[in-house]
Amino acid sequence: MCFEILERDLLARIGRLKTKSGKVETPILLPVINPAVQPIQPKELAEKFGCKALITNAYIIRKHYGEKAAEEGIHRLLGFDGVIMTDSGAYQILVYGDVEVAPEEIVDYQERINTDIAVILDVPTGWKVSHKHAEETVRETLARAQKLWKIKRRDDILWVGPVQGGKFIDLISESARKVGKLPFQIHALGSPTPVMEQYLFDLLVDMIMAAKMNLPIDRPLHLFGAGHPFMFSLAVALGCDTFDSAAYAIYARESRYMTEYGTFRLEELEWLPCSCPVCTSHSAKELREMPKNEREKLLAMHNLYVCFEELRKIKQAIIEGRLWEHLEMRCHSHPALLKALKKIGKYAEYIEKYSPTIKRSGLFYFSHLDLARPEIIRHKRKIMKDYSPPEKAKILVLLPQTDEKPFHKSREQKRFLKLIKEKFGEKSEIFHVCTYAAPFGIVPNEIDEVYPLSQHEVASPLDEETIEYVAEQVAGYIEKTNYERVFLLENIREWKGKIAASCKAICRRKGIKLFTFNVEKWNRATAERFADFISEIMGKGKTE
Amino acid sequence: MCFEILERDLLARIGRLKTKSGKVETPILLPVINPAVQPIQPKELAEKFGCKALITNAYIIRKHYGEKAAEEGIHRLLGFDGVIMTDSGAYQILVYGDVEVAPEEIVDYQERINTDIAVILDVPTGWKVSHKHAEETVRETLARAQKLWKIKRRDDILWVGPVQGGKFIDLISESARKVGKLPFQIHALGSPTPVMEQYLFDLLVDMIMAAKMNLPIDRPLHLFGAGHPFMFSLAVALGCDTFDSAAYAIYARESRYMTEYGTFRLEELEWLPCSCPVCTSHSAKELREMPKNEREKLLAMHNLYVCFEELRKIKQAIIEGRLWEHLEMRCHSHPALLKALKKIGKYAEYIEKYSPTIKRSGLFYFSHLDLARPEIIRHKRKIMKDYSPPEKAKILVLLPQTDEKPFHKSREQKRFLKLIKEKFGEKSEIFHVCTYAAPFGIVPNEIDEVYPLSQHEVASPLDEETIEYVAEQVAGYIEKTNYERVFLLENIREWKGKIAASCKAICRRKGIKLFTFNVEKWNRATAERFADFISEIMGKGKTE
Repeated sequence: MCFEILERDLLARIGRLKTKSGKVETPILLPVINPAVQPIQPKELAEKFGCKALITNAYIIRKHYGEKAAEEGIHRLLGFDGVIMTDSGAYQILVYGDVEVAPEEIVDYQERINTDIAVILDVPTGWKVSHKHAEETVRETLARAQKLWKIKRRDDILWVGPVQGGKFIDLISESARKVGKLPFQIHALGSPTPVMEQYLFDLLVDMIMAAKMNLPIDRPLHLFGAGHPFMFSLAVALGCDTFDSAAYAIYARESRYMTEYGTFRLEELEWLPCSCPVCTSHSAKELREMPKNEREKLLAMHNLYVCFEELRKIKQAIIEGRLWEHLEMRCHSHPALLKALKKIGKYAEYIEKYSPTIKRSGLFYFSHLDLARPEIIRHKRKIMKDYSPPEKAKILVLLPQTDEKPFHKSREQKRFLKLIKEKFGEKSEIFHVCTYAAPFGIVPNEIDEVYPLSQHEVASPLDEETIEYVAEQVAGYIEKTNYERVFLLENIREWKGKIAASCKAICRRKGIKLFTFNVEKWNRATAERFADFISEIMGKGKTE
Repeated sequence: MCFEILERDLLARIGRLKTKSGKVETPILLPVINPAVQPIQPKELAEKFGCKALITNAYIIRKHYGEKAAEEGIHRLLGFDGVIMTDSGAYQILVYGDVEVAPEEIVDYQERINTDIAVILDVPTGWKVSHKHAEETVRETLARAQKLWKIKRRDDILWVGPVQGGKFIDLISESARKVGKLPFQIHALGSPTPVMEQYLFDLLVDMIMAAKMNLPIDRPLHLFGAGHPFMFSLAVALGCDTFDSAAYAIYARESRYMTEYGTFRLEELEWLPCSCPVCTSHSAKELREMPKNEREKLLAMHNLYVCFEELRKIKQAIIEGRLWEHLEMRCHSHPALLKALKKIGKYAEYIEKYSPTIKRSGLFYFSHLDLARPEIIRHKRKIMKDYSPPEKAKILVLLPQTDEKPFHKSREQKRFLKLIKEKFGEKSEIFHVCTYAAPFGIVPNEIDEVYPLSQHEVASPLDEETIEYVAEQVAGYIEKTNYERVFLLENIREWKGKIAASCKAICRRKGIKLFTFNVEKWNRATAERFADFISEIMGKGKTE
């Protein structure tokens, strides 16, 4: 296997990709090198930025250098002894309509220039095309992908199998399913550039997921043209492992300054909002006033610093299990990114399947968008499918969440539990105390210390959708269990009567007696009153 | 005036503070210098970080250097010719219970060491204290503040009038009101450190606002001990102009690594998520393995780079009118910060009053939390109080928002407006077309190009609270106007029937005829059907 997965979070992974020129760690950004117009030389990329891999275009290399590149080898030609990936000229088809090279030739050429990672000459679907045209690009790309395995001669090059289909999700799925059956070491999602240029990140989510869900999950996925750091975490979270970026250089040419949350025109910057070596040694004014090519180089360097920094931030977030938090922060850079985060909910169950169970860090809950988190999906499934209440439990007691966690050790609950114990003695085992809480819904007391049921922080007050979700979970739990009675303590100010309404509906339907006790605040005093309330009603029950 | 305000956004301002040692631009962070244990010398702060102002402690200086500091002057003693602020030892009272110096002595000493900005020896309220004790600290602080103006001899030093009261909002208000009547050049909010240490940022919002709303708004406000970059934007947005931070050094001593979104222990960092000169020339491992004092200095430098970078980001956001966006992004670093953002809603009307009307950039709408934005509050007030429909308008036509803006130039509306014009000719003036839209509620067509009604991006799908808000605005508008009829086109999938329900209730109450037309999608085809619907009903009306 050329790809080893070391750590996971969501669909992201920290991986190690082995090539004949060495190993690289993923997720990784490969700067695009165009030898003709290159603001930062490959050697400098290696030395200043610790850059271990780059991408160039075999079609352009062939056009400009022809056999020279084959004789010298691409590494010597570029002056870079790290990992070199070559694209095939497919992007040039998209831009210029066609290229003057046969698919077989570009396979042969990539082998002869001794590239490390090669891409077949696929046929990009493009953006403003019909479903029929898109189908043809998928079919032709697949035909070329199949042919590769007959014509290629070397075994030490990693070949990339591109997935096409454009914005047609059905075609992406089909393309991924078929190309994934061929023995490619890497896959790539083709032609997302127009989608990204138009900030259609929600569509990008569907596109990446269609590819991801239909490709072998253990192969790395490359996303072409994803060059802006503000969307790296989105792509990584959805399982993209490698990226290429020409943007750092193109933006620099246009005096555009990247940040991890957006792009500035240099003219509008009064201060440089960055601490990279470029920005700590120049002012915005200095950059504006220097000769163009000097500025272009410095801006390209700045842009790369920002890109690489964001990847380090993402990798650190992955090993800590904080990638969702990181993604959510970045998605608040632009509404188009938040739309994408909202879209992820659609794939929550798939993402949950591949996301690790135990993490290093607690979980932050900001809003109902976080209900798509694997931890929450997983808890819901556990409660609804695998969980059974303790054997002696006959009566469900529902208490609201407390700030202190675990819930059963909070001052409020401790007081309540003590009183129940005092009042009912051994018989208190018939009471099963569960906490209803955001974001997990229902948390039976005997498991409330299991990760992450006590390891989370919630930004209160809760939003409507979160309250609704908790209310649904409580009802779903009553539905699937067989308690004889339910006692509910509702903190009406916090829960707006929604928990009571939801319990009432399900209890009526199941014919279970529900006793609701409303309080303004959930504290030790109301804990006492609620214990009295239960005791009184249970007493009545006895004499009935 | 020693403080000139150049730019504003929310309650934030870019200002210029004039002192006898030169001008500094605010918001500004003053690194705390403790000459006894100082990882970065003041000279280096000036040279490497462009640091123009710092703060030290007159009480500690007096203890260690006594008359030497008075003879040399504080600038020479520290080797720093920028602006020096001296704190008075009040923090030491808080920590050690008392200090061995009289309030008058520390006034005199600060004058004699030639400080630029001085603080009276106030009495910090502290955290775990009774209301009664807090009252006493407020009273005594005020007495000392009054006394200053009798005993001080120099006129070229800026004096800081501290506001006390701790967590007691009523006392902060009172303290601010009273101390604000004295001729202090600067004010400061005292003892928020425990509040920040406990991440009680929502309480901090109340505390800052109580001070802000009761102090003269044109004086700068200092926030003591706000040393973490992840909350700078919160404090700045609420009108704090100057900060001091010992945290950069204290954290460094404890091997804690700051980022703009939180703190890491150096041991848990696999990669350095930063591009500052320290982090681009060292790896996490190298930092961990070097001698402690070397590491401490480098971490202090890194921490300062991050702090200063965040302030540049904030200043850039202020001049672009993007501070709310910046704040919202940062508040997604931790639920405790998002709680604070939720709290800001309480002060939305006050903030609106002082926030500028025209901004450079469009507005991003992420969720209902953004309903507290000045632009939205302002539009609501305008519509409800100042706006009147065109004179000939008799019939209200409500159309849903479109992606294209301005709304009346969208393909959907253009089609609709053309049809109405065709069908009704001159008489079409009786129809007043308004768009109901998130986040502004109701947008009359004739003003839909006024900033920011066309200059915003919304992260759809909308949340419940936003839909509710729009529904309320629509009802409120019908309530305050005198249309004879209302035609509503509702895109039910997007608006969940809430707009119709809200219109129905108010129209019934006012006895206005409401005609609702539900569509699955709002496009040119449904525009035609809706125009037909209106025309048919109007025809019937004629023959009635």
